[in-house]
Amino acid sequence: MDDTALRLGIAELVAAYADCIDDDRLEEWPDFFVEDCHYLITSRESHEEGLRHGVIYAASRGMLIDRVTSLRRANIFEKHRYRHITGPTRVLSVAGGVAEARTNFLAVRIMHDGDTSLFATGRYLDRIDVARQPLRFIERLVVLDSQKIDTLLVIPL
Amino acid sequence: MDDTALRLGIAELVAAYADCIDDDRLEEWPDFFVEDCHYLITSRESHEEGLRHGVIYAASRGMLIDRVTSLRRANIFEKHRYRHITGPTRVLSVAGGVAEARTNFLAVRIMHDGDTSLFATGRYLDRIDVARQPLRFIERLVVLDSQKIDTLLVIPL
Amino acid sequence: MDDTALRLGIAELVAAYADCIDDDRLEEWPDFFVEDCHYLITSRESHEEGLRHGVIYAASRGMLIDRVTSLRRANIFEKHRYRHITGPTRVLSVAGGVAEARTNFLAVRIMHDGDTSLFATGRYLDRIDVARQPLRFIERLVVLDSQKIDTLLVIPL
Repeated sequence: MDDTALRLGIAELVAAYADCIDDDRLEEWPDFFVEDCHYLITSRESHEEGLRHGVIYAASRGMLIDRVTSLRRANIFEKHRYRHITGPTRVLSVAGGVAEARTNFLAVRIMHDGDTSLFATGRYLDRIDVARQPLRFIERLVVLDSQKIDTLLVIPL
Repeated sequence: MDDTALRLGIAELVAAYADCIDDDRLEEWPDFFVEDCHYLITSRESHEEGLRHGVIYAASRGMLIDRVTSLRRANIFEKHRYRHITGPTRVLSVAGGVAEARTNFLAVRIMHDGDTSLFATGRYLDRIDVARQPLRFIERLVVLDSQKIDTLLVIPL
Repeated sequence: MDDTALRLGIAELVAAYADCIDDDRLEEWPDFFVEDCHYLITSRESHEEGLRHGVIYAASRGMLIDRVTSLRRANIFEKHRYRHITGPTRVLSVAGGVAEARTNFLAVRIMHDGDTSLFATGRYLDRIDVARQPLRFIERLVVLDSQKIDTLLVIPL
């Protein structure tokens, strides 16, 4: 792939990921990651302090699958959807078959009754396996701008 | 056009459409569509049920022109503008001179007194004539995430 | 640079600018502009009337540096951050080493306690020096959709 094709491919990955969640096709969500992946939703403060814990954490694709399973079984939360609006994806580096990229996002939450609110904003900090097709996330850090979100977070971002 | 040029062209069409509405150049809006077009604003629920009706509906460019005419005459609604923020445009397929594309959007509404609010979110599901220049919409489905918007909707999205 | 590379380069400039502000790396902000630059935050009404004044105004890179210095010293405002979400960047023309571009944006404000709100929406109207690397802004007009924002504006947009 030349440089332009690579950039468009990475942008497509980021966009397809958001659509997967927004469409409630969560069973497909783990397939956006390599087996030995790392997924973390954290706050800006925690991220700046170098902490590796967060609101949602997974250290393998299996843990992502488990999360979807339990989310589907646990029917205790009020039904809602997200709408992700992502800004342009910046490819910061490509080396050794791994691309580092960054994308700002905003997630709107739509409740079952139609109530709509600005739910979360932040950055995706990604490490992507670009050595093979389809492109997949090795690591996706979801760094939230606000620390106020924790208790409401059920569906992945 | 090669693949990259086509993708950039489609992204430009989607962005130019939003700017046309946000700039209040509504008289130019019908020209983004082919003569024999289909434009529909609907809700996620209606769309999933396969229904083809909606809040705003037009089955030809003439109907779009009529809509703008009546919107300009009817001065009963409080003046307002939108600001569209669109995410990346995904080109899902290209075949037989027709591209299918999808773009998430968020529309902020700005009232005459400056009051600003999150007005609508959703998806554009597009079929685009890419066989000739300029690119035009054959079909644009505006699928809203919330069913709560109907009565407020005057200006097209 | 061919056309595609130029478009991607301009999009990268616009995205990197937003990240610089959102990351609170304001000392790097003036370097996005040429020495003899023009930066203006104004409202849609003022812009349409052709007025060249605004909420924040700078007619050289030195004035931008001064602004950051005074912003860092004046510790009277409550700490906050922005999250910019920018739409696609449209390159409207390229001539004589200068590109004209337009990008819609939305800025969310995150207060120190985590309170998050839709802060501003508008358009970036840019003139960019594309004759040399790195690309820099000759002029950046930030045209806000609402006139209600003035008193709250401390950090540049």
